[in-house]
Amino acid sequence: MTIQCNPHAKPRAPGDVTFLGAGPGDPELLTLRALKLLEAARVVIHDRLVSPEILALINPAAKILEAGKRGFGPATPQTRINALIVAEARSGQPVIRLKGGDPVLFGRLDEEIDAVEGAGLQWQIVPGITAASAASAAIGQSLTRRARNGSVRFITGHDMEGFADHDWRALSQPGTVTAVYMGKAAARYLQGRLMMHGGRPDTPVTLVENASTPHERILGSTLARFPVDLAEAALEGPALILLGLAPRAAQAARPETLHHQEELVAHAP
Amino acid sequence: MTIQCNPHAKPRAPGDVTFLGAGPGDPELLTLRALKLLEAARVVIHDRLVSPEILALINPAAKILEAGKRGFGPATPQTRINALIVAEARSGQPVIRLKGGDPVLFGRLDEEIDAVEGAGLQWQIVPGITAASAASAAIGQSLTRRARNGSVRFITGHDMEGFADHDWRALSQPGTVTAVYMGKAAARYLQGRLMMHGGRPDTPVTLVENASTPHERILGSTLARFPVDLAEAALEGPALILLGLAPRAAQAARPETLHHQEELVAHAP
Repeated sequence: MTIQCNPHAKPRAPGDVTFLGAGPGDPELLTLRALKLLEAARVVIHDRLVSPEILALINPAAKILEAGKRGFGPATPQTRINALIVAEARSGQPVIRLKGGDPVLFGRLDEEIDAVEGAGLQWQIVPGITAASAASAAIGQSLTRRARNGSVRFITGHDMEGFADHDWRALSQPGTVTAVYMGKAAARYLQGRLMMHGGRPDTPVTLVENASTPHERILGSTLARFPVDLAEAALEGPALILLGLAPRAAQAARPETLHHQEELVAHAP
Repeated sequence: MTIQCNPHAKPRAPGDVTFLGAGPGDPELLTLRALKLLEAARVVIHDRLVSPEILALINPAAKILEAGKRGFGPATPQTRINALIVAEARSGQPVIRLKGGDPVLFGRLDEEIDAVEGAGLQWQIVPGITAASAASAAIGQSLTRRARNGSVRFITGHDMEGFADHDWRALSQPGTVTAVYMGKAAARYLQGRLMMHGGRPDTPVTLVENASTPHERILGSTLARFPVDLAEAALEGPALILLGLAPRAAQAARPETLHHQEELVAHAP
């Protein structure tokens, strides 16, 4: 098999919808299939968080629509996004539904598939790199480690009822590693729940903002200091929180200060 | 920013090690950065599970070494792999350590980084698509779903002491979704632990073999029947098990039979 960069990829049939992962932000972390599909796209409906560098790769002749969804904050209601996807697909062009990260994680994918299937349309899913992968790569840590943690949880900080409920006692156990999506606004809530259930104050908590992009910033903190450090850092971009992992270069020091990307990028021992 | 397909990517400096995710198997699910790095590689040390189609993309002038590691079964001891990486990097060429899936998930990445740092070498991590993403895309399901599960666990079926121990009571709760890596050999153990802790016999269990490749096969089963179905199916390739998720097209029917890829690929409603 050969991979070609401009393969004149066969466009999907009219009425088809492709749920496509845009990855964490760096255009080079798109998959080869994602690039092919974007270059051949006719209609693209994208989340607000998909970066301009990635949108620039879309076929210039394509119709590009923003779905308006982001992790937290003002958002187009999901029902309107569903209706938009169906309307575009029915209008006779194949549709790329471009979603930040990996569509199978915290992307409300099922709801969009339900709408597409309900309309009698066909669809496929093309996975992408999720934010937790990019964030752990950025801090030089594995999400799992033999003899430390044989499992990792991905959780949301925010759900339909507001801050999301989880098995806090399990998440509070030493050695547990958890990636929290959409957790920035829930920082004090997360801290409170974890400490109430026995989480140790010195549990490492690391926030990676704009993972994989030139604006990436890493906030190394602890459970005790996390909300305060976060407020001081005044982060504005999308962020992933890693509970139970410290940036590798700083493991010994347990830093509670903000690290900019340049400080960690070299990974000199 | 522009993405080029043959960018004559700047090779890493001698002594550098890049831990690079090869993704789930389909070469088109490599990232653009992975392709660049492989095309410019001087030395590649790869897991046994990395597919021939991906190895074919490596710079023909590169030295290609197999680390011999696979999920389960005979394997080169990790200490020998660590020593090989260090020896190659010290010999003056940048080294690509090509790992199946995503290096930050169940890849013993920390141990290799420890060895590389211990030798005074620099390193970086480039994430890849993990098997759980490819498997859930294959069965048309999201790993998380609003109002169903706001979290998902990735666990290993096998660890240093043999079959891995986990919080079985939590994993047995209705609505819980868990991706099990290296779990095929542990099927009966997983079933026993889950049912002992209250797992319902009709909990959907889906196994995806060779996810994302032409040899992909999907086994839709239940907790009650899973070990028997697995034995009958005689799967031989690497597999990911999804506890709590049924293939989407078959959700209503709760099938207990083997589905080949062709049956699910169209996703016609």
